[in-house]
Amino acid sequence: MAQNIYDDPGFLAGYSQLDRSVRGLAGAAEWPAIRALLPDLRGRRVVDLGCGFGWFCRWAREQGAAHVVGVDVSEQMLARARVESTHGAITYIRADLESLSLPAASFDLAYSSLALHYVRDLAPLLTEVHRALAPGSHLVFSVEHPIYMAPAHPAWTTDSEGHKTWPLNQYLVEGGRVTDWLAKGVVKYHRTIGTTLNLLIRLGFAIRHVEEWGPTDAQVAAKPELAEERERPMFLLVAAER
Amino acid sequence: MAQNIYDDPGFLAGYSQLDRSVRGLAGAAEWPAIRALLPDLRGRRVVDLGCGFGWFCRWAREQGAAHVVGVDVSEQMLARARVESTHGAITYIRADLESLSLPAASFDLAYSSLALHYVRDLAPLLTEVHRALAPGSHLVFSVEHPIYMAPAHPAWTTDSEGHKTWPLNQYLVEGGRVTDWLAKGVVKYHRTIGTTLNLLIRLGFAIRHVEEWGPTDAQVAAKPELAEERERPMFLLVAAER
Repeated sequence: MAQNIYDDPGFLAGYSQLDRSVRGLAGAAEWPAIRALLPDLRGRRVVDLGCGFGWFCRWAREQGAAHVVGVDVSEQMLARARVESTHGAITYIRADLESLSLPAASFDLAYSSLALHYVRDLAPLLTEVHRALAPGSHLVFSVEHPIYMAPAHPAWTTDSEGHKTWPLNQYLVEGGRVTDWLAKGVVKYHRTIGTTLNLLIRLGFAIRHVEEWGPTDAQVAAKPELAEERERPMFLLVAAER
Repeated sequence: MAQNIYDDPGFLAGYSQLDRSVRGLAGAAEWPAIRALLPDLRGRRVVDLGCGFGWFCRWAREQGAAHVVGVDVSEQMLARARVESTHGAITYIRADLESLSLPAASFDLAYSSLALHYVRDLAPLLTEVHRALAPGSHLVFSVEHPIYMAPAHPAWTTDSEGHKTWPLNQYLVEGGRVTDWLAKGVVKYHRTIGTTLNLLIRLGFAIRHVEEWGPTDAQVAAKPELAEERERPMFLLVAAER
């Protein structure tokens, strides 16, 4: 089973204070870029893998999705989702993404935001997702960018000229990375972009868009600290078609 | 016009001493991985974009390709190709990849090894390549990996624990990079993986394989200095279908 760090009280307390937890989708700088990859949701069946507080489920429903299934392993996040983002057309399910089972050909969009890097082996999950998607349907997800995840010491340094640099190493050494982010000992799994894309291709997905996310000029003007995201990407966005 | 650094005497002298120049394809550590992406060449029509000394053209002909066109901007490299890798079924053409024109639907494989990062704008070239490929045909190429190209100071550093690190920055700032490699002032163009793949997708190519190349265990055992390539990838290999 995947580590369920979101039910760690200290982690959840810290996570709940992030902009993306307080303000929802609008608090996530990469959201406009992800939104641009989504198909029209009217009448569609949607599954959100790692739905957290249910922000996306609620948004998808507001866009006219016929039915939305939110899956998460965190009981506490689901509890809040069931209160704050509830609707008759939204179903929340507690499940571990590493052993998830979904009904065949029953969704038109599989969505996941910053959850798949907690999954040790993506092949079983994405095989299941492929099976659960109807032909012609969509998979859209974000993960932490492998450049962000790979290093032994993932923290900014400064070169001799004062230029911010990201101390990249171990990029081709895939596997677990343990970091202290909001709590000690958070386990994530580093994979190259190639590994992720080749798995999708092998499963029968057609790659439609690959984005190594960076802030727009308007975002940097509004929030200057975002400028450092241009030095090394933090997020990878992928859209694929089944 | 693209910079023609390969006709700079100092550059060419240095380049001619690299393993890949002395030993040909076998001297390029990434060659086995590229070869694995190639279709059966028997009876096929092949174009090599940036053919250099003609090693690949000769190899493709030996594999049974019906006709091979090698394109390069370097007069001196072509001169050597015409002597050392000559054959009635191989045609060498001097042309700038930035303004190349090819006959429509006349090739089954477009190949390029470490040349496209010298091209400022890939869109016109890849549009032409798409037009020149027959339906169902293949595009296989390598470029310097954007992680390798991006930094302001692309040279290894060592962290406080003695771990080799690559000082990544400017990753999302696409455009020219000037380095001193074999000669002063070599101009290359940095693009993210996403930018390259999205261009191919937009042109109608289906992405078949994306590989952020690293050495095999056997390669590292035979040549231990290759181990550092696992810290940050130097090459990106892409296979697409038209």
